[in-house]
This record gives sequence, structure tokens and C-alpha cells, in this order.
Amino acid sequence: MKTPPPSPRSEVRRKANRGHYDRAQIHAIIDAAFLCHIAFNDAGSTHCLPTACWRDDDFLYIHGANNSRLTHALLTGECAVCISHLDGLVLARSAFHHSMNYRSVVIYGRFGAVDEVAAKAAAMHAFLEHVSPGRNRHVRPANAAELAGTRILRLPLNEAAAKIRNWGVEDSPEDMAIPVWAGVIPLSLRPGQPEPEAGCADHPLPELANALRLKDSP
Amino acid sequence: MKTPPPSPRSEVRRKANRGHYDRAQIHAIIDAAFLCHIAFNDAGSTHCLPTACWRDDDFLYIHGANNSRLTHALLTGECAVCISHLDGLVLARSAFHHSMNYRSVVIYGRFGAVDEVAAKAAAMHAFLEHVSPGRNRHVRPANAAELAGTRILRLPLNEAAAKIRNWGVEDSPEDMAIPVWAGVIPLSLRPGQPEPEAGCADHPLPELANALRLKDSP
Repeated sequence: MKTPPPSPRSEVRRKANRGHYDRAQIHAIIDAAFLCHIAFNDAGSTHCLPTACWRDDDFLYIHGANNSRLTHALLTGECAVCISHLDGLVLARSAFHHSMNYRSVVIYGRFGAVDEVAAKAAAMHAFLEHVSPGRNRHVRPANAAELAGTRILRLPLNEAAAKIRNWGVEDSPEDMAIPVWAGVIPLSLRPGQPEPEAGCADHPLPELANALRLKDSP
Repeated sequence: MKTPPPSPRSEVRRKANRGHYDRAQIHAIIDAAFLCHIAFNDAGSTHCLPTACWRDDDFLYIHGANNSRLTHALLTGECAVCISHLDGLVLARSAFHHSMNYRSVVIYGRFGAVDEVAAKAAAMHAFLEHVSPGRNRHVRPANAAELAGTRILRLPLNEAAAKIRNWGVEDSPEDMAIPVWAGVIPLSLRPGQPEPEAGCADHPLPELANALRLKDSP
């Protein structure tokens, strides 16, 4: 139920295809995400927390409440951030050769603070644009108190690496005649039926990022 | 673009609704997942890696290659594991009050090894059953060499906590008249068109776990 045991063919494919360090590839994987997972140490313990994220230029951005313990830990120590997308279930003819298709990025480094007011406002603008392109034109922007209560942190992407598996089944030759459906079931995050607030149903539906087209909803 | 600033109402709701420590709730969040993110330390650095996971009784299981650096690090040190599901985008009338609906679990502890052959075979059986119920009856089970090359680890769930946000928009009263669509766009992982291997299209499609019904595919 993992990648195949080493063989000349699979070894080459794994090395060639699973490690990607190209910047455009890394950016694309980050841009397709709404959430990242942050691994960090605080007071001698290791933690793993999910949080919303977005990218601008060659930085990963997150936000949090001002003066939080998380913020302090991230600004004072090294961390690792992982973004991953589960793209499919790879169903093989043998139990062992089942696998999953995915794209993931791991970033190492230390977050820095974005504290200048205009830079914070620009970052929050970029965050909302990432979630729903164009929506900034229609909603009330963050005011001074809201910006003051929010901490923006960013992590440079210079120590980032991607891994991708995006191919089919790799069964052993002796298993090929087993009479069972084998193949890939693609998986993707998709929108359901929008749930408008009272009084909002007549306004135009929002645009969504990441190809989450609402016309695809059930 | 976060939870609202403290107010009597939202403070109570956050405290009451975001922290869940009920075992059934934690199990349900884990059982809905195919992937977890593991935060751990190795040689002085913090790492965050995605890997496949499943639950049996009150343990989270993962697997990996035998004698890997990851396995060694997990067996010799404490870690934190996070499972999260992004359930929706919460689109408010003000930029600041945008949020996301989610379910997440964080588990703290140290992995132990499952090394006895029958226990390993049972764990791999449970893993495939988690991905595709009933599929074990149709595929070739793992043989001795495959089991020997796989390490099974499990983490007790006694130090696990869940967080959930599953409600609507929390705009301030003064923003309620802003003429923009506000509400929740539910998100869920859904299957696309199955991609059978050559010669497999006539076999019955697999069952999928986690309510990923193939009849819902586009």
C-alpha cells in the first residue's frame, strides 16, 4: 500500500517525478491552497496547526491575532510549513501497490512580521483577492482597529521543495490479470450549493479562486 | 479576515463551539481523512510532512518504508499530528469578518511500532478498507516481502483535541446593509471521472470511503 519496492523503473520514475524544485511549480501548488499546516516548537513541545495562507511574490503569508502565543513562537524560531493537495486515489490490483496522487510543498525558515500599516492593508487585500477575486471592490475594507488587531506574518520561499505524484497504477507484472477495477479516482475540493445569508440571495454570487467554479456545484 | 474581535456573543460562541474534545467527534474527523500532517524534530530541525493515515480503535495509524529516517525520528521523539478538513468559505460583508469553516484534530504523543506480522497484515487490511470498503476481497493481499518492507506506526489518541467552525457569517451590525452576496460556500473533496487502467473498464467500480460516492462524479 505504498510506492513499489525498488526496481530500476520505479526508482527512476520516483526520483524523476516526485521531487520538484522549480519555482513556478511551487508557486502553483501554494496558489491552489487555502490552508497550510505549520510545524513549530514552543516551550519544548512540537506543534502542528492548520491556518489560512496566501502567496505574494516569493513569500507565504499567514495572519493571526496580535500578541498570540503562536505569533510569538513563529517570530522567534524556525518552522516548517506544509501545503498539500490530495489529487486522487490510486487503486491497484494488489493491496501493496495502492497509492495516492498528490502535490505538496514544504517550506523551511522563520516568519517575519509585516507591521507597517499600508503593507498590512495590502496583505489583507491580497488575502481576500486570493479567496475571491474581485471581492475587495464590494466589501467594507478593514479599518484601523481591525488592522491593529491582526498580525501579518510572511515566510520567504527560498527554502521550499515540492513533491508530486500524478500518474497511474504501478502493479507488478504477475498481478496484471487479477480481475478487479484498477485505476485512479481523481479527487478535488469542490463547492457545494451556496448558502446565502438572509437578504443576500439576490446579489450576484461571488467569484471563487482556485477554479472553484460555482456553476459546477451540485 | 478572521474571527470577529471579542464581543460577548462571539466570544461565547467561539469558546463553546470551536473546542471539541469528545471522542466520537475526534474519531469522525479522523475517519473522514485520507491524509494527516506530522510535525516532528529530527537532528535539531522541525519538519512537517503529509502522509496517509487511518484509524483503528483509539489509535491513528501511518505506514512508511522500513528503516527510513522519518520512522526512526517518530519512534524516538514526541510529535504533533494534525488532520484538517476545509468545509467552506465564509464570505462576509466586511473584509475582516471573512472566515473559513473547518474541522481539525491535533494529536500529541509518540508513535509506537506495530511489528508483529499478523498485526501488520491486519493494519494494512484496515488501511485499504478505510480507502475502499470491501476492496480487500478482490485484490492480492500483501505478501511476506511486502509486509517486511513496510513499517507500521501508531499513535494513541488519548492526547487529541478537535476544533470546529461550522456556522455562518458574523458581520458587525453596521455592515449588514452593504449590498454584496454574503454567506457560506461549502467545500468538500469530491471524486472526478474514474480513470481505469487498460482492460479494467468493465470491472465494477470500487466503493469509496468517506461518502465519496462515484455516482456523484461529473
